Amino acid sequence: MKIEAVDFYYLSIPQVRDIGDGSQDALLVRVQAGGFTGWGECEASPLVSIASWNCPMSHSACKPISASVLGQKLDSISDIHCINRLVRENALDLLQADHTLSGIDIALWDLLGKKFGEPIFKLLGYKNTYPKIAYASQLFGDDPQTTLDRARNVTRAGIRAAKFGWGPYGRGSVEEDAAQIAAAREGLGPEGILLIDAGTVWFDDVSAAEKRLDALRAAKVTWLEEPFVSGALDSYKKLSIESGKLLLAGGEGCHNFHQAKNLIDYGGIGYIQIDTGRIGGITTAKQVADYAAQRNVLFVNHTFTTHLALSASIQPYAGLKAHELCEFPFDPSPLGRDFTRTKLSPDKNGMINLPAKPGLGIDPDLATLEKYALEVEIKIAGRNIFKSVPINP
Amino acid sequence: MKIEAVDFYYLSIPQVRDIGDGSQDALLVRVQAGGFTGWGECEASPLVSIASWNCPMSHSACKPISASVLGQKLDSISDIHCINRLVRENALDLLQADHTLSGIDIALWDLLGKKFGEPIFKLLGYKNTYPKIAYASQLFGDDPQTTLDRARNVTRAGIRAAKFGWGPYGRGSVEEDAAQIAAAREGLGPEGILLIDAGTVWFDDVSAAEKRLDALRAAKVTWLEEPFVSGALDSYKKLSIESGKLLLAGGEGCHNFHQAKNLIDYGGIGYIQIDTGRIGGITTAKQVADYAAQRNVLFVNHTFTTHLALSASIQPYAGLKAHELCEFPFDPSPLGRDFTRTKLSPDKNGMINLPAKPGLGIDPDLATLEKYALEVEIKIAGRNIFKSVPINP
Repeated sequence: MKIEAVDFYYLSIPQVRDIGDGSQDALLVRVQAGGFTGWGECEASPLVSIASWNCPMSHSACKPISASVLGQKLDSISDIHCINRLVRENALDLLQADHTLSGIDIALWDLLGKKFGEPIFKLLGYKNTYPKIAYASQLFGDDPQTTLDRARNVTRAGIRAAKFGWGPYGRGSVEEDAAQIAAAREGLGPEGILLIDAGTVWFDDVSAAEKRLDALRAAKVTWLEEPFVSGALDSYKKLSIESGKLLLAGGEGCHNFHQAKNLIDYGGIGYIQIDTGRIGGITTAKQVADYAAQRNVLFVNHTFTTHLALSASIQPYAGLKAHELCEFPFDPSPLGRDFTRTKLSPDKNGMINLPAKPGLGIDPDLATLEKYALEVEIKIAGRNIFKSVPINP
Repeated sequence: MKIEAVDFYYLSIPQVRDIGDGSQDALLVRVQAGGFTGWGECEASPLVSIASWNCPMSHSACKPISASVLGQKLDSISDIHCINRLVRENALDLLQADHTLSGIDIALWDLLGKKFGEPIFKLLGYKNTYPKIAYASQLFGDDPQTTLDRARNVTRAGIRAAKFGWGPYGRGSVEEDAAQIAAAREGLGPEGILLIDAGTVWFDDVSAAEKRLDALRAAKVTWLEEPFVSGALDSYKKLSIESGKLLLAGGEGCHNFHQAKNLIDYGGIGYIQIDTGRIGGITTAKQVADYAAQRNVLFVNHTFTTHLALSASIQPYAGLKAHELCEFPFDPSPLGRDFTRTKLSPDKNGMINLPAKPGLGIDPDLATLEKYALEVEIKIAGRNIFKSVPINP
């Protein structure tokens, strides 16, 4: 079959707030080929990714993504690899390309899984999947009491692990930050797995991070996530030597294989966190998972948005038993909740199991999503470059 | 003063060809503050960068670039640094942001230079500038004879150095590639400085690059550029050990400081090539130049497009005497040629001298550029997100 159509749907809640909640909008991608439909999601600015789909060519290494996708052959896994290579080569100088490719690549795997009647993890070569320990991902409260309440909600919901991040953490005093960490631990109880996400707040400043290590150790935090931006390898390495058993986690900002590989090779991290909606999709995420396993670094998904993205983000490491933690969107926006009817909710043991259904095993709920759809229109010199099509015609 | 307006002009020749010539289109940026006007250029997909300027916010770390620029204070160099930090923080998850920031940052420096009546290199702390050896950057011919002719043209024009890249190089047999290199050397004569650009053609495959080393050494090539993509640190390092005195060059794909730093720290390169129109502008390019100098790696600009971009790209290392090579657009498209009336052409010794005029010392030729301007219109849910303004009203 040939790729006949690729459509992008910009979805958003009416009022996006200035908070670290990435589930407030979404870019849904539909790929059609040979009578099959695949779905994917870019974890990206919807408009900017849409613009990269059909922008005019600037030169041979700065082509629109469509030039490397539409009309391509899609009969096998190697065809997906071929499309990935083409996009990367033809859009070498188009920075947004990796984010746009991500949603397309996920949809290609979904489509091929549906065609072959196999879940994606089988196509990736995994015979079995292992349940993952769900961790509830949440924002720090504006004060420790709110954080404590949120942590208690996690425990009450039967979830065994929680991550707190963003909000005020890292921006105030060391004492204020310590109070937040202590509150999270108190709310979660002594047995809960506690993860802390600094959201790159210290950029590359090792000393700012070091000052917080005592409080993190006292609260038996499992990992400190993103003390620095993804490229600050040197800072990661220095802090990892200092932090010892308190492992570092990072990588959600990586948008290609080499950036993740470099964090593993040079950053001293214990966990590599990959957003399948940013790194280039399932193809690249699987490549990172294989490399991480080989280097004794634990792979973990980054997913703050929808259950469609959650299925896509677990597939690449579904069969890696030792890599047992899994981020899941605990408190997404109404858009995130409405995205799919099927949910990958944690079971009574707080574990998430991938559906053994073809492709992602989960489809977007188009009838419900219709109300979130925003119409996009782009013209250059009077010519239509992009015009939205209805999501639920 | 406050930043009152930022405008983007999408310029293009009528028919963009599928060749490695980045001068076929351009994104010109105008910043206005306190009665002054600054100009900059993004080396980026024009439409995609425009979309990032005013796209709706997705969340607190995925805001449009405008949110971090419009209305900001601009009285001093530290204000420019502050705007850079803001953009990077507020657009952490907006991949295209670094390319868009680049043109804005250049315009901010141009504007501040005009206000203070000083060239940018003075604002950067350089007392003097040193002439740079111009190297003519060209595409390989489709056959060795064409390459030979092009190399002869360089010598005839009084230019002492030439770079050949892209085209068929690295895609055919080792023998065909060797014939291209020999032709370039023959055309340039024994004294000319010869540089070869593989344009990332081997992605991260060290063995493919190794097979070409003999021919490169035989032709006394000064550097082999971009054998691999910017992130492939390990491949760079391995090849650098193999290539020895034939130095490696790379970095044009870097879009932030850390990526360039990592290439210097871990890639074993001899030259770090920075495109001021991609890495985040003059601010980040200067940071890389300082770091390179400290680590005994030679800084060199990447400029294939206009003389406005050329001035911007030399400013960050204008005062570094030992860093003496300089790429200049030898055979740009009509748009590249028409961009500015003032040209930074090599003198009779083949050297390029920066103008000692305020800011970039060179302005775009708006009256001539008008014919290349493309009107862009972006609407979301019927609301205007972007609409071009006339370049020469």
